[in-house]
Amino acid sequence: MVSEEIYKELSIKNEKKIVLLVIDGVGDLPVDGKTALEDAVTPILDKLCQNSITGLTYPVSMGITPGSGPAHLSIFGYDPLKYNIGRGVLEALGIDFKLGKKDIAARSNFATIDENGVITDRRAGRIPTEKNQEICEFLSSRIKRIEDVEVIIRSGKEHRFVVVFRGDDLSDGVKDTDPQQVGLKPRVSASLDSRGEKTARIVNTFVETASSLLKDYTPANFVLLRGISKYPDIPSMEELFKLTPAAIATYPMYKGLARLVGMEILETGSGITSEFDSLKKNWHAFDFFYIHIKKTDSYGEDGNFKKKISVIEEVDKNIPQILDLKPDCFVVTGDHSTPCKMKAHSWHPNPFLLNSPFGRKDSAVSFTELECAKGILGKFAAINAMTLMLAHTLKLKKYGA
Amino acid sequence: MVSEEIYKELSIKNEKKIVLLVIDGVGDLPVDGKTALEDAVTPILDKLCQNSITGLTYPVSMGITPGSGPAHLSIFGYDPLKYNIGRGVLEALGIDFKLGKKDIAARSNFATIDENGVITDRRAGRIPTEKNQEICEFLSSRIKRIEDVEVIIRSGKEHRFVVVFRGDDLSDGVKDTDPQQVGLKPRVSASLDSRGEKTARIVNTFVETASSLLKDYTPANFVLLRGISKYPDIPSMEELFKLTPAAIATYPMYKGLARLVGMEILETGSGITSEFDSLKKNWHAFDFFYIHIKKTDSYGEDGNFKKKISVIEEVDKNIPQILDLKPDCFVVTGDHSTPCKMKAHSWHPNPFLLNSPFGRKDSAVSFTELECAKGILGKFAAINAMTLMLAHTLKLKKYGA
Repeated sequence: MVSEEIYKELSIKNEKKIVLLVIDGVGDLPVDGKTALEDAVTPILDKLCQNSITGLTYPVSMGITPGSGPAHLSIFGYDPLKYNIGRGVLEALGIDFKLGKKDIAARSNFATIDENGVITDRRAGRIPTEKNQEICEFLSSRIKRIEDVEVIIRSGKEHRFVVVFRGDDLSDGVKDTDPQQVGLKPRVSASLDSRGEKTARIVNTFVETASSLLKDYTPANFVLLRGISKYPDIPSMEELFKLTPAAIATYPMYKGLARLVGMEILETGSGITSEFDSLKKNWHAFDFFYIHIKKTDSYGEDGNFKKKISVIEEVDKNIPQILDLKPDCFVVTGDHSTPCKMKAHSWHPNPFLLNSPFGRKDSAVSFTELECAKGILGKFAAINAMTLMLAHTLKLKKYGA
Repeated sequence: MVSEEIYKELSIKNEKKIVLLVIDGVGDLPVDGKTALEDAVTPILDKLCQNSITGLTYPVSMGITPGSGPAHLSIFGYDPLKYNIGRGVLEALGIDFKLGKKDIAARSNFATIDENGVITDRRAGRIPTEKNQEICEFLSSRIKRIEDVEVIIRSGKEHRFVVVFRGDDLSDGVKDTDPQQVGLKPRVSASLDSRGEKTARIVNTFVETASSLLKDYTPANFVLLRGISKYPDIPSMEELFKLTPAAIATYPMYKGLARLVGMEILETGSGITSEFDSLKKNWHAFDFFYIHIKKTDSYGEDGNFKKKISVIEEVDKNIPQILDLKPDCFVVTGDHSTPCKMKAHSWHPNPFLLNSPFGRKDSAVSFTELECAKGILGKFAAINAMTLMLAHTLKLKKYGA
């Protein structure tokens, strides 16, 4: 892994195009002897694999299970241990909220507490989005400012919403109020360092005020705040790599992550074919495309092995749409593994395939965990994926004489 | 990779001998399905491989294409991101010029400019070396000093020469005058930091004076300076590794690189057998030998696949000369890849073979990119090569109790 300064120095602009297809959580553990990738029928990916270089990537470090933030930052070429992005920021970006440099954002839930103040449902029975919007409008009309700080409330899906605090001297060094467990009382926010006192006070006042306004709104009679965070100071992909990047994703968080590093978010419907159509439509205007497939991860988290396989097969069937565009470098990988038998993200490395006329070939014959383990790229930190994509499109000058 | 302090602490002197054979740019991409190493008939290397440990090395980092400087420093055990060696310094070292710590050296070209001052040939039609020597003598007799700075001019091959500025308060923080492109006017040097003003002024005066003296010397009617640099403060191989190292190389730059880290440069003719003869002749006097084979890289840069193969086969035929000396550790590798189809250095990792009685064996059956990819050493940073050579000759003490 080289420094950002070296990327800036070596990267050059050219016409070659990169497609990075991230099949979220695609890596798996065997169920009845086979992983989802091993069980799926994927003739297109297998053939592609036979003409590509392969390996296995570690998103953060061996044995470390990443959240979606670090896992994605890493494949985008950013050190996930350097840039720690709060969940609040991601949520704000995901609903297209233009966060300012000094703003503090919190990922927030409408929740249910009982008469003793104990949380009985962290998601308020997943209230309908329309109800959420109604409550957010109500709260917005009543809470506009706390002390000298502007309070901005934006509704999300079901029980989720975002609170942004805008003002001077705010810090992200404060504790969550969400204990992330039912049967407990909500936490009181507190400063984690010398600069967080004002913010903790504002957060606590917001929770008290909102919850007292909501006390008759059962099941949404309380608010929980977590991931209280600031916009990180992160260089854009254009700045570092001289790319003009675009993202095709259907879920807010991935759009948020992409926007964070300066990608343009392209319009798309929710299905895989619709995402690939968007790629085709915007092919002329960008030189880097990140396409995100969400459902493999969702079914992994549900433990639904069959459905996970069917998403992989659907991706496979549609890959010719991408190949027809003749990308100069085409990468297929996961951001992290989501084994069905764990129903959660895991630390297992991700199969990685890179197709380019400047790639050597290796012996992997299908796009699976074990085949990619034989690949010429070996096992490597995912942050190198960006360097490899730039190298294979001749977007990096020689280092030194 | 361990720190230099740890090398100093752990390394010990013993009688065991290391041979590092660097086949420059040997790594390749397939042409008609095979790389140069795969196509070449190399029974000796293949047999050696079957009794060795193998892997693939990254000179700087995955996806980064190195120049010869960083690529060699790395195999010599030096961090190429820490020591950035200017081309001027390399050229000076390569012509056996004894550079002082305060000297500034520039890699210089005789070039051709037209009546509008636009560069039409950066190499002045590759004038013969004799002509170059004549011009350098002429310039040396006319330009001895600029302000209080001594100017030393030394001829190289064809259009290349070295200028050394010797005096106080000189800095390498100045811009090249060579735009490295025809059709442009030469650049004016300028200070890149607060310390470079005097040097930039001296450089510009030198270019003006030399070029006005040469205005009738068509095609060599102008001079271009680049890689304006100082001798880096780099510890010797003796200091770090307690080795008594020697280099056998035919091209100036590689001799320069070897001298930079404290190797003694051995006399040799220009052919491979002559280089190996030099090894035999000097076998008693050193415990580390670096042997450099240049032509694989030259033919790679020419895109001459057949000739590249023939050099590999010639190396193979002569390797018994080395084996007869019974080195305690014998490494064969490249410094970087130079694929014929790219006609340039590339980022692809280098096949690496280490033969020693203390090596485990692995499954690689021939010295090729794909076979070495299966090797027990895996894919690793080339800087570890030195540690491995020291380890396999028992030249490193245990770390910690």
